[in-house]
Amino acid sequence: MKVIYTEKQRLHHVRFEFLNGEATPCFEKPERADMVLNALNNHGGFTIVEPNSYGDAPMRWVHTDDYVDFLASCWDQWVETFGDVHDASPYCFAPARHLRNRIPKDIEGRLGYYSFDMTAAITAGSWKAIVAATECALTGVDLIKQGEHAAFALCRPPGHHAAPDLMGGYCYANNAAIAAESFVRQGAKRVAVLDIDYHHGNGTQSIFYNRSDVLFTSIHGDPDYDYPHYLGFADEDGEGEGLGFNLNLPLPLHTTDWSVYEPVLAQALARIAEYKPEALVISLGMDTFADDPISYFKLMRNDYQNIGWMIGLLNIPTLFVFEGGYAVDDLGHNTVAVLDGFNKALV
Amino acid sequence: MKVIYTEKQRLHHVRFEFLNGEATPCFEKPERADMVLNALNNHGGFTIVEPNSYGDAPMRWVHTDDYVDFLASCWDQWVETFGDVHDASPYCFAPARHLRNRIPKDIEGRLGYYSFDMTAAITAGSWKAIVAATECALTGVDLIKQGEHAAFALCRPPGHHAAPDLMGGYCYANNAAIAAESFVRQGAKRVAVLDIDYHHGNGTQSIFYNRSDVLFTSIHGDPDYDYPHYLGFADEDGEGEGLGFNLNLPLPLHTTDWSVYEPVLAQALARIAEYKPEALVISLGMDTFADDPISYFKLMRNDYQNIGWMIGLLNIPTLFVFEGGYAVDDLGHNTVAVLDGFNKALV
Repeated sequence: MKVIYTEKQRLHHVRFEFLNGEATPCFEKPERADMVLNALNNHGGFTIVEPNSYGDAPMRWVHTDDYVDFLASCWDQWVETFGDVHDASPYCFAPARHLRNRIPKDIEGRLGYYSFDMTAAITAGSWKAIVAATECALTGVDLIKQGEHAAFALCRPPGHHAAPDLMGGYCYANNAAIAAESFVRQGAKRVAVLDIDYHHGNGTQSIFYNRSDVLFTSIHGDPDYDYPHYLGFADEDGEGEGLGFNLNLPLPLHTTDWSVYEPVLAQALARIAEYKPEALVISLGMDTFADDPISYFKLMRNDYQNIGWMIGLLNIPTLFVFEGGYAVDDLGHNTVAVLDGFNKALV
Repeated sequence: MKVIYTEKQRLHHVRFEFLNGEATPCFEKPERADMVLNALNNHGGFTIVEPNSYGDAPMRWVHTDDYVDFLASCWDQWVETFGDVHDASPYCFAPARHLRNRIPKDIEGRLGYYSFDMTAAITAGSWKAIVAATECALTGVDLIKQGEHAAFALCRPPGHHAAPDLMGGYCYANNAAIAAESFVRQGAKRVAVLDIDYHHGNGTQSIFYNRSDVLFTSIHGDPDYDYPHYLGFADEDGEGEGLGFNLNLPLPLHTTDWSVYEPVLAQALARIAEYKPEALVISLGMDTFADDPISYFKLMRNDYQNIGWMIGLLNIPTLFVFEGGYAVDDLGHNTVAVLDGFNKALV
């Protein structure tokens, strides 16, 4: 299997996030990709390739122009205003019940307007890394269009929390959504996204909520009790054209082990099979692991082999897009286990 | 003039706020009230009185029940979840373009649902202080109803950023709005609020935006370039019944000295005089001062005497409610200058 990765993504390295009352070193860091690359190399059978260049035009397929312009210009405006001592980070926001839909002019106001949390700061190299991550996903789509059955876009920063004009949850551009849209723009009538990150893919849901040509399915921790809190409930099933094409499968935080997870994954896969997509995009978050530092599910290494195998049995051209999962010893091994399980299903 | 104050307000003391990329000691601290009390005592002519007890029922006149219940229960739920090492502080929010109007169950989700920024943490003593601050304002109303021409509610925490169900900007319960509503409930047909804090009183505006029985006027730094960013623009003039009863007068951040401020204050006062209110509530923020650490206007001590004098000339029963203005040497003197100027206009 080909793995698309570029060192340019390393340019994005946020120093601190603000979590439950304190500043803490950011969990989403370049070492995450290193751990996965090491595990891929140790395992063998994977070829690392560089992404093609696409620029920021594909980002504008699923994000608003003003938001993409903001991502591109944020760091310079921040430095002009506050200098480069700290990462560009919001502190006030535009909440649902308190505002007019107007975008302020200064960087403090713009940062808050385009953010929904305190975990998506912007640094000097962020923009280049954000573009590079989308290019990894887009290259994966093109490899599949050229005949590969599957590919793995090792994207950093991740993307599934990024909404049409909001960043948050370590995410800026929605790599998985851009990939799904690329399949559509290259002729696919139906594309499915399966989001198996521990956290709900609120951004991907928002992007496709009114559409029937992209089915969004997500298995995640109950938003009543975990991030991103304000989307991801079971009764969110799409709107308008999209009604019936959004499937949220929230699970209890502390009691979800494989015995709970497996039948729900089977349910999601059954819905996808019924939909008959021409391509499948997996938002591959690895934070469902028992030892993940910010999540609560109890999946073990063997379970990841099973997840990949179950996905592989669908026999649909599949792009894996890396999402969350934080730097613990098993991160790389677990990721490889999914891909390895997937490959074994094809034999 | 009677000044209503209680030491109970000291129970609210947030350790850190998160501002433009870094954690910093909270600017809104108990010493602010001490500085004003000292200046009042040094000047003479002011009598400090304790507030009456009203409980949290008046808070529910202008805030939703669920929000008030949240304020009352937040600290205990925070400690149960995260312990008492850090102040209760949100990190993810429910932005306007991304959500359903649902309130999550855990404290992380509730904090973000009811917040719009990173400056309104909750501590062990916050709830008692929040109630006490509203009681200072309510006691001021009752003193005026009993015949005083004016009173000064020395409230901490301040209130004018607090919306019906949102905290932020160091504010939790909207003391000025609760006072205005108390005048209405005691028979006033028309009450005016004049907000002269450097920052727009977005909470007060939101509370009265659809009403004609409370006129809201505010002079503040242009929200395109300063906090609270998402409300406070000149074209926000009320809705429905309230159309024409909201007057925002934003001013440029760095060039606003007395020569710019005075004619705009005169404009606000003319609108108030035309409205013929039976009572006037002043949201008395002192952060328009040239040396304020987080604001940019250039008012000087003499200007505060003039502000009080111009307000006094209206000859309307007036409750001053303390809002922002941070701990610089002149904070107390400037506050007394407003009240002293007001008294001189009556002679």
